[in-house]
Amino acid sequence: MTSILILNGPNLNLLGTRQPDVYGHSILADIETVCRAHASSRGAKMEFAQSNSEGALIDHIHAAKGVHGGIILNAGAYTHTSIALMDAIASVELPVVELHLSNVHAREEFRHVSYIAPVALGVISGFGAAGYPLAMDALLTHLAQHG
Amino acid sequence: MTSILILNGPNLNLLGTRQPDVYGHSILADIETVCRAHASSRGAKMEFAQSNSEGALIDHIHAAKGVHGGIILNAGAYTHTSIALMDAIASVELPVVELHLSNVHAREEFRHVSYIAPVALGVISGFGAAGYPLAMDALLTHLAQHG
Amino acid sequence: MTSILILNGPNLNLLGTRQPDVYGHSILADIETVCRAHASSRGAKMEFAQSNSEGALIDHIHAAKGVHGGIILNAGAYTHTSIALMDAIASVELPVVELHLSNVHAREEFRHVSYIAPVALGVISGFGAAGYPLAMDALLTHLAQHG
Amino acid sequence: MTSILILNGPNLNLLGTRQPDVYGHSILADIETVCRAHASSRGAKMEFAQSNSEGALIDHIHAAKGVHGGIILNAGAYTHTSIALMDAIASVELPVVELHLSNVHAREEFRHVSYIAPVALGVISGFGAAGYPLAMDALLTHLAQHG
Amino acid sequence: MTSILILNGPNLNLLGTRQPDVYGHSILADIETVCRAHASSRGAKMEFAQSNSEGALIDHIHAAKGVHGGIILNAGAYTHTSIALMDAIASVELPVVELHLSNVHAREEFRHVSYIAPVALGVISGFGAAGYPLAMDALLTHLAQHG
Amino acid sequence: MTSILILNGPNLNLLGTRQPDVYGHSILADIETVCRAHASSRGAKMEFAQSNSEGALIDHIHAAKGVHGGIILNAGAYTHTSIALMDAIASVELPVVELHLSNVHAREEFRHVSYIAPVALGVISGFGAAGYPLAMDALLTHLAQHG
Amino acid sequence: MTSILILNGPNLNLLGTRQPDVYGHSILADIETVCRAHASSRGAKMEFAQSNSEGALIDHIHAAKGVHGGIILNAGAYTHTSIALMDAIASVELPVVELHLSNVHAREEFRHVSYIAPVALGVISGFGAAGYPLAMDALLTHLAQHG
Amino acid sequence: MTSILILNGPNLNLLGTRQPDVYGHSILADIETVCRAHASSRGAKMEFAQSNSEGALIDHIHAAKGVHGGIILNAGAYTHTSIALMDAIASVELPVVELHLSNVHAREEFRHVSYIAPVALGVISGFGAAGYPLAMDALLTHLAQHG
Amino acid sequence: MTSILILNGPNLNLLGTRQPDVYGHSILADIETVCRAHASSRGAKMEFAQSNSEGALIDHIHAAKGVHGGIILNAGAYTHTSIALMDAIASVELPVVELHLSNVHAREEFRHVSYIAPVALGVISGFGAAGYPLAMDALLTHLAQHG
Amino acid sequence: MTSILILNGPNLNLLGTRQPDVYGHSILADIETVCRAHASSRGAKMEFAQSNSEGALIDHIHAAKGVHGGIILNAGAYTHTSIALMDAIASVELPVVELHLSNVHAREEFRHVSYIAPVALGVISGFGAAGYPLAMDALLTHLAQHG
Amino acid sequence: MTSILILNGPNLNLLGTRQPDVYGHSILADIETVCRAHASSRGAKMEFAQSNSEGALIDHIHAAKGVHGGIILNAGAYTHTSIALMDAIASVELPVVELHLSNVHAREEFRHVSYIAPVALGVISGFGAAGYPLAMDALLTHLAQHG
Amino acid sequence: MTSILILNGPNLNLLGTRQPDVYGHSILADIETVCRAHASSRGAKMEFAQSNSEGALIDHIHAAKGVHGGIILNAGAYTHTSIALMDAIASVELPVVELHLSNVHAREEFRHVSYIAPVALGVISGFGAAGYPLAMDALLTHLAQHG
Repeated sequence: MTSILILNGPNLNLLGTRQPDVYGHSILADIETVCRAHASSRGAKMEFAQSNSEGALIDHIHAAKGVHGGIILNAGAYTHTSIALMDAIASVELPVVELHLSNVHAREEFRHVSYIAPVALGVISGFGAAGYPLAMDALLTHLAQHG
Repeated sequence: MTSILILNGPNLNLLGTRQPDVYGHSILADIETVCRAHASSRGAKMEFAQSNSEGALIDHIHAAKGVHGGIILNAGAYTHTSIALMDAIASVELPVVELHLSNVHAREEFRHVSYIAPVALGVISGFGAAGYPLAMDALLTHLAQHG
Repeated sequence: MTSILILNGPNLNLLGTRQPDVYGHSILADIETVCRAHASSRGAKMEFAQSNSEGALIDHIHAAKGVHGGIILNAGAYTHTSIALMDAIASVELPVVELHLSNVHAREEFRHVSYIAPVALGVISGFGAAGYPLAMDALLTHLAQHG
Repeated sequence: MTSILILNGPNLNLLGTRQPDVYGHSILADIETVCRAHASSRGAKMEFAQSNSEGALIDHIHAAKGVHGGIILNAGAYTHTSIALMDAIASVELPVVELHLSNVHAREEFRHVSYIAPVALGVISGFGAAGYPLAMDALLTHLAQHG
Repeated sequence: MTSILILNGPNLNLLGTRQPDVYGHSILADIETVCRAHASSRGAKMEFAQSNSEGALIDHIHAAKGVHGGIILNAGAYTHTSIALMDAIASVELPVVELHLSNVHAREEFRHVSYIAPVALGVISGFGAAGYPLAMDALLTHLAQHG
Repeated sequence: MTSILILNGPNLNLLGTRQPDVYGHSILADIETVCRAHASSRGAKMEFAQSNSEGALIDHIHAAKGVHGGIILNAGAYTHTSIALMDAIASVELPVVELHLSNVHAREEFRHVSYIAPVALGVISGFGAAGYPLAMDALLTHLAQHG
Repeated sequence: MTSILILNGPNLNLLGTRQPDVYGHSILADIETVCRAHASSRGAKMEFAQSNSEGALIDHIHAAKGVHGGIILNAGAYTHTSIALMDAIASVELPVVELHLSNVHAREEFRHVSYIAPVALGVISGFGAAGYPLAMDALLTHLAQHG
Repeated sequence: MTSILILNGPNLNLLGTRQPDVYGHSILADIETVCRAHASSRGAKMEFAQSNSEGALIDHIHAAKGVHGGIILNAGAYTHTSIALMDAIASVELPVVELHLSNVHAREEFRHVSYIAPVALGVISGFGAAGYPLAMDALLTHLAQHG
Repeated sequence: MTSILILNGPNLNLLGTRQPDVYGHSILADIETVCRAHASSRGAKMEFAQSNSEGALIDHIHAAKGVHGGIILNAGAYTHTSIALMDAIASVELPVVELHLSNVHAREEFRHVSYIAPVALGVISGFGAAGYPLAMDALLTHLAQHG
Repeated sequence: MTSILILNGPNLNLLGTRQPDVYGHSILADIETVCRAHASSRGAKMEFAQSNSEGALIDHIHAAKGVHGGIILNAGAYTHTSIALMDAIASVELPVVELHLSNVHAREEFRHVSYIAPVALGVISGFGAAGYPLAMDALLTHLAQHG
Repeated sequence: MTSILILNGPNLNLLGTRQPDVYGHSILADIETVCRAHASSRGAKMEFAQSNSEGALIDHIHAAKGVHGGIILNAGAYTHTSIALMDAIASVELPVVELHLSNVHAREEFRHVSYIAPVALGVISGFGAAGYPLAMDALLTHLAQHG
Repeated sequence: MTSILILNGPNLNLLGTRQPDVYGHSILADIETVCRAHASSRGAKMEFAQSNSEGALIDHIHAAKGVHGGIILNAGAYTHTSIALMDAIASVELPVVELHLSNVHAREEFRHVSYIAPVALGVISGFGAAGYPLAMDALLTHLAQHG
């Protein structure tokens, strides 16, 4: 049975209360519920986690090796600054889908840089909470074909 | 009944024969077939088009106004150079999903620039032919919620 | 009798319906009518054309040689990306007035670049539809003095 | 009765003697005469001033508030360096037409920057002395429509 | 009774022993004492914290919501690199005073960038330990006027 | 008895009428009154001046030497362009507090450059008119300790 | 029998009349005649085409696959702006000789960029019309050795 | 008896399993063993630590003051992004040898930046696990001469 | 009898008291005396002036036309920011020697830019007060040969 | 009888043994033999030289004046760094064909800069050893037409 | 018996007398003596050379092929400017250790660029004369493992 | 008796024949004669040398130590590219006057960079052959005051 990790970075714990015009009104617990139902409907297992700490996110990625078949990573602002996260992904050699709630390329210049993308399978951004099940479909399809 | 336009830009007519390690082995006709089936399964209408000409792509986008509810645009190389396409999208005020077969942010620097993204709803890249039904889901979900 | 070409680039066919806060409410046919009346009042002939295709715009410029005394060119987004248009103008050696409806230098950074300006007689931007008769006056005055 | 200020910046007092291949042979007094006649023919009042001092130009702009309906500003070289002039224009909230005798975008790279343009109504450049009545037409038309 | 958070970032725990020519001789405990006295004299409550961890600082900012009326943030080196801190401040929507002991704009180029400033109320830098009570005055005055 | 110069640059004479959403509603005379009262309450003398001319501001700084113990300089837009002001400050070797009404680092990119900061004691920005007494406190505290 | 395509881009139809000091006095028909004779003398077949449209040039390149052994491409101004042409060449996997009449690296900075070169066999520039038979020799020699 | 700290940053815990073509096959425990033996042979004490957290690495550096004579720091990806680590090193005023397993200057552009180098004694990179005893020799020699 | 203008820009009135390690101990009056004696010994007339105002310096340059054969210009900080001074020099078409007391190219990056140099005859910098008679020799020699 | 110099720069003496996938298998002596035969077949004289020293290459270029009608220069890596070679070519005023074995524009960014090109007749690159006779044809044709 | 070349670039002949605060007090002959003893103690042969000429250094590198097993290269200032040295190293395909006496990354920006590093085995910098035996250890260890 | 070295770099041996509109008509031997006479008239000794080789110029500078009191260096194109020359000057710690025949700051952008200037006493450029005696005066005056 395929298992995936859905990992969320800094400030995503505030979802729903945080700038709803940018990030939408869903709170992270709602998203987790949707993801859990979606995983179940596709016959997959899922771990769902969030941390504001770059180091803790790296630890989560390391721990995924041998446990999960792939990772959906919404690294938030660390997407644009963390070479260490990039190296963590390259280290564990698992397929990673880079996910963003907002359309980062329509925002400030510094959000156009991604250290995740060069080591990711693909990117989904701009669809709000609806991006999570899309990313799960993308990853599970990939794992079914290559896994 | 919701109708969408799936619009493909330069060189996508060569799909399958063109650098298959980068773009995969599906040919554009196969993708159209998959999309048509997917649209049908979701109760939506679909127009599928391709052109190598920037001007013709602009004409297609203009013609979509009043006919389609949204556009899935794989603008190929014009993504990175065409302000005119950007203006066309802004002109028709339809939701557009930017789509790429390859993970453009993992390729050459000049493919990291997108003039489409700032006026797009969101971006899906890197999942090969599998990105088309994902983009249709993203767009149809959006239209169902906002349309 | 002096004759001029008024040539309009990509997306200008949508004028009036397209982002009226940026480009105003006049439609292109109205502008043509105003220009035709203005030309008539100044005793000049006028050709008025629009295309979304860079290649077709180049063809129009080539065809102007020997037919028109000068060109008013609203190249739209191609202003900022087309070296080929620049070369076309240099090739035909006709005076060209660069025209923009909006004040391009008050907009995005990438609209501050003009490949037309270095080979143009002068630039008029920011006055909306009212810029067309201004540009005609500028060009006809120039032709009267140098033609 | 509409009144406008025509304000000229550094080195424009030398017009006619200064690099005539770049700036033409008209002297500033001639231009003032032409402008005065043109204002008269359009039933408008006009103040015409020149200074080589950035501070004095700012003072002129400040003084225009409540006196004139708009400003035609040929800021010369200060166009490219003066954020203070930009702020002065924003402060008085009058419509400003940016004017240049030469086609600044066909000259050195540093003349392509304009701090005036982002707060201006529009720009007219490259038509030599003939640009002054064009700018007056542009401004008076604007004032008639919005004033 | 107004309450504020004074939050200190990386290496500020070493104050007094660390490069005293740059950061002065006060140690962080002394500064806390001064701040506590100052808060008391102005009838305000105060929490004083320090961490070397970016994630922990984000947690502190999140926790301030609903507890404190505003934040004084000396983010140290994270000022120049942390988009995640920027997002945390935007998320909690509390007024933040950016504080620096040294005059960061008189130091290395990379210290001239601040991701805090665009989401801060204002900035105070260069006054050493004396900047803390100044920042408290600035924040409390603001809260009195807008709170 | 300590004496300080409070020097204000271009466009600050229009305060209150000028973009009040950016600069607040206080007029410069009000600010002078507040400063004079604050100086008096701290037992200090104060000179208060404004000019739109870069050269006049330099003259004011030169004249401060031997007369004032320090300067509070709100150089407005000249902050971002004037190396001559920077040299003037370095020449007189008086402590200078750089002051801005708005949070310049939250505005356009070109307002992030300061030629004053490298030769200033410190910077206070973003607190509107309330920044003046804060700057006076900062400067007087500094003079008491180092003067 | 080896066959090659000689493909010419925008404005080359004006050759001879267009800036002869830059591009020489030969007209394109003359060049075609010389090329046809040269091909004949080397026992090769040749197709000779020109278009001002980027899309049409892409179509020509696509059509060359399976018909010609290689391409001589004088892409004119599109050399410097067209990633789509670059992708077209990569798609058909035919050897391409990049050709320029003028020495592009001795001209404006923006003509130093080539999107063709990274996917071309080699480059010949600066020899005017004489570059065509040189390019044919280069391509035919290459095809003889590798074909 | 001289004591040194060997401090390892993010992802180094995965050594041996992580991209062995870049980082070699030794695991971190093996390297610690080699270092311990080397320290012993040179009559020195050694502490060996690793963390994926920037904050924890700063804490380790702070704690080294007064305990160790110097530090060997393989800061991994934080080398290129962490001004906070730079400040931590400057704060404790201990000699630091910057160490990298791979030749970082032969890799991506963003790995050519080091915030550690300007405050380090020296740099050793590219020798894989063999770099550790080299760095120990470099540091111990330095401490013998300057300690 | 040849006459020259020696024109000094901002802050040069403070010479001798201003950063003597950078600019030396001579005061401007001493330099004038030396220059006057040197002019006399070479049989030339001389005007010596200083202003802190960019506009006043431009006025001086304009006034030199028809009065002096050439100008020695120590434009101080305006050298690096004033396109208006550059245009003033180009306007009067007199030979100008650019002079600096300090070696500007050994100082901050922003002092390496000169808007004077492209329109100057030549540059002398770094020799302190001794540069004035050198510049006089350079200019008088030039005038003797070309005047 | 026309005479030409074929001048080869640094590392070209190692040809054949040096990175044959980049530079091909021909050794420099073989190329000299081919060139000598080609010169003979076209009735021209030829000097063939190589040096690893920039100064020696400059001496060779100087010595060519009055002896040879033109130069074929494969300056190797000095192409990208030597302004002195550029000046040497400009000094002798002989036509120079810039030659490269590899397609330099398909390699590292720093090989895209050429100080030779702006003073060269034209460029031939990417055809390996076969580029030498092509360059000879180009130069001899030019000399026949202009010599 | 393993043999290595230790090659020193420009200005290293002045070692000891040249800026001893930057480069230390050892003279090059002392370093050679230390290296010779160190080579002997490790049972290796060594050649030691210095030249101020870029061409001569290239000749030395070429000559090392087939004679030495590897090279220690202190290329001095040529490190930052010489693509020709880079190519020479790539040509001979010998392992090279890049060595610097000073910590180049703590010095001027232009010393942060290295054309040697991308083709080197590794880099040792900042340890003064003590870097030579470290580099020998690094190279000999590498040769023992890979040679 | 004071002795100075006048050292000339690449291509200066061709003076008089080389681009006389840029460099003048004097040949280097004439300049040497003028310099020798000028040295004699000022009671100084002089060595005059020229080389096209960067390494040889470095050797000349090294050899000047202990022999000459200072150097006049016209480094030609090496001025803009040679960090090694910069280091040579810093190594010998002699005062150096940087000299250029042409006004380098009025020429191509790449001639605006000088690696000599930061370690030079001062710069004289643009006065042609007349710059040599000026530079001698500047250097001898300096040596008289500081030597």
